[in-house]
Amino acid sequence: MGELRKDPILGRWVIIATERSKRPQSYSINREPVLEDTKNCPFCYGNEHMTPPEIYALRPDNSKPNTSGWKVRVVPNKYPALGIDSPLKKKGYGLYDVMTSFGAHEVVIESPDHRREIYEQSIDEVCNWIRVIQGRVEDLHNDIRFRYLLVFKNKGKEAGASLTHPHHQIIATPVTPKRVREELQGAEAYFKLKERCIFCDLIEQELAMKERIVYENEAYVSFCPYASRFPFEIWILPRHHCIDFYNEIVKNEIKLLAAALKSTIAKLNKVLNGTEYNYLIHASPNRFMRSGYWKTIHEDFHWHIELFPRLTRTAGFEWGTGFYINPTVPEEAAKILRETPIEV
Amino acid sequence: MGELRKDPILGRWVIIATERSKRPQSYSINREPVLEDTKNCPFCYGNEHMTPPEIYALRPDNSKPNTSGWKVRVVPNKYPALGIDSPLKKKGYGLYDVMTSFGAHEVVIESPDHRREIYEQSIDEVCNWIRVIQGRVEDLHNDIRFRYLLVFKNKGKEAGASLTHPHHQIIATPVTPKRVREELQGAEAYFKLKERCIFCDLIEQELAMKERIVYENEAYVSFCPYASRFPFEIWILPRHHCIDFYNEIVKNEIKLLAAALKSTIAKLNKVLNGTEYNYLIHASPNRFMRSGYWKTIHEDFHWHIELFPRLTRTAGFEWGTGFYINPTVPEEAAKILRETPIEV
Repeated sequence: MGELRKDPILGRWVIIATERSKRPQSYSINREPVLEDTKNCPFCYGNEHMTPPEIYALRPDNSKPNTSGWKVRVVPNKYPALGIDSPLKKKGYGLYDVMTSFGAHEVVIESPDHRREIYEQSIDEVCNWIRVIQGRVEDLHNDIRFRYLLVFKNKGKEAGASLTHPHHQIIATPVTPKRVREELQGAEAYFKLKERCIFCDLIEQELAMKERIVYENEAYVSFCPYASRFPFEIWILPRHHCIDFYNEIVKNEIKLLAAALKSTIAKLNKVLNGTEYNYLIHASPNRFMRSGYWKTIHEDFHWHIELFPRLTRTAGFEWGTGFYINPTVPEEAAKILRETPIEV
Repeated sequence: MGELRKDPILGRWVIIATERSKRPQSYSINREPVLEDTKNCPFCYGNEHMTPPEIYALRPDNSKPNTSGWKVRVVPNKYPALGIDSPLKKKGYGLYDVMTSFGAHEVVIESPDHRREIYEQSIDEVCNWIRVIQGRVEDLHNDIRFRYLLVFKNKGKEAGASLTHPHHQIIATPVTPKRVREELQGAEAYFKLKERCIFCDLIEQELAMKERIVYENEAYVSFCPYASRFPFEIWILPRHHCIDFYNEIVKNEIKLLAAALKSTIAKLNKVLNGTEYNYLIHASPNRFMRSGYWKTIHEDFHWHIELFPRLTRTAGFEWGTGFYINPTVPEEAAKILRETPIEV
């Protein structure tokens, strides 16, 4: 474990690995190919002992924990960014602010299949891990020290994945992250001005303009955002106002979410020929209310998925300004994706 | 050229290449090795015709423009992110905001030598291009439509450089970038609270604590920031309060800046064995004052260089939260760098 340190000027938090701090020589490891061998893959059947003991597993066959037979499996990350072992403590250090790296870091293994990507899975299989993620997030919400839960997926080495076997990650943080706070504040400012959710307005405009739409069904829509940071960046949103992925999804909508996610990624994969990508879910943070149940206070927010293939490198200009340079026009990216046929 | 689009939620600007928009196939180009051949290098002697006509060149031998003989050469970027050809126009598009990609994008070629990196250059050579950059920035400040000027360097493919030949870049933007605005606001908030510059306080604390210091001389200090985002991240700052790199550097301090920069990068290069890196200069934006001369209004700011080797990849967690995970403790990185002997 390590500690969380705050940048005194920007208020940005950094997780520093104070134990097992990496020496200069060890950075060449990052350049090596990811583990491809199913025999040594900790996420394959028969290797359950290679992960920390499981937190949850979907086992329709009632097989025993930490054995084969599961459909979806959740384990603690073996090298967690944040952990629940250290109690949450905050202190000052001269000008600086620091806290223990309290949090949670879990891995959701999508299926026992080492190479079965989202676009190859059945809708039922996708629904399985979506429900498992929802369950995990609901459970983690019971610890009021967790201020925010981020669900994300890194696919491929370029996207920062260290293992090939398809998986998602969940990180629970003891503070609301800067990037999320900014989005909440932006949505709140718009709501104050207009009395409307900015995401609802964006969806309505995109569906009317049509030019950036990638995919739509009755409940979800995906489009390339007007100010896409990256080429072929895509957002996936519920069409109706809905602040929280975890609790507010209507049950029969999970299949439609699975279809939206699978179709969008299938299109991306076909157009960019097996691209590496990241995606992440932005939902409202949760607060403990006096009435004793979890309730979000950000009704001006609208949960969504941000997805971006890793095609360009950020350099000095991007890091120095927060500007992005996108070499592909979002309307052209959307047209190519929209017109690419896929089988679902 | 393209256009500048604003993210409606975060207020972040994105430069979209509307002309020459890249098709999916063309992204494999990014993975190819950078140009290594001096015969085809547009920054080498004899190839001056391969760049757009020069803006400025240091020619002690009075050689003609766009011929060999120069010591430092400044040319427009052949593929500019922003350009001065299109007039600055802003408009709305439904919910969205867009403006022409007005700006400037220049390249400062450090020397005619294809492979002479900063740590191999003499102090006089480093001083030469520092003075040339100062001159270019002073000149660009005359156009009041430029709100901010970013000077930066990308070294190596991993850091986003497309050419090997050592060079810096200058980009002038028509808005103060988000990342800079946040830093200015952070420094201003601290000043309001304390009546002191936060950077001056940081320097004093770092010099007292010593544990994160990498290098120091009479006028400059470099250290690994307490909340370093990246392993071996280093900031270089003037020891005295100074808001603007471009106008306020005392003449005889340029040699000390050159020594600080060269020594710091030499240490980094030795420790990380020829690492690829980015650095950028954050200085105060300039505003036109009624009295008719340029004067900064941010006296609570302190110019500095942010330098980071590219050893880790940012993934879903970083993009989704704005958190960073740094696997090397800044104090350990600083100790290794500080104790690494170099010849200057």
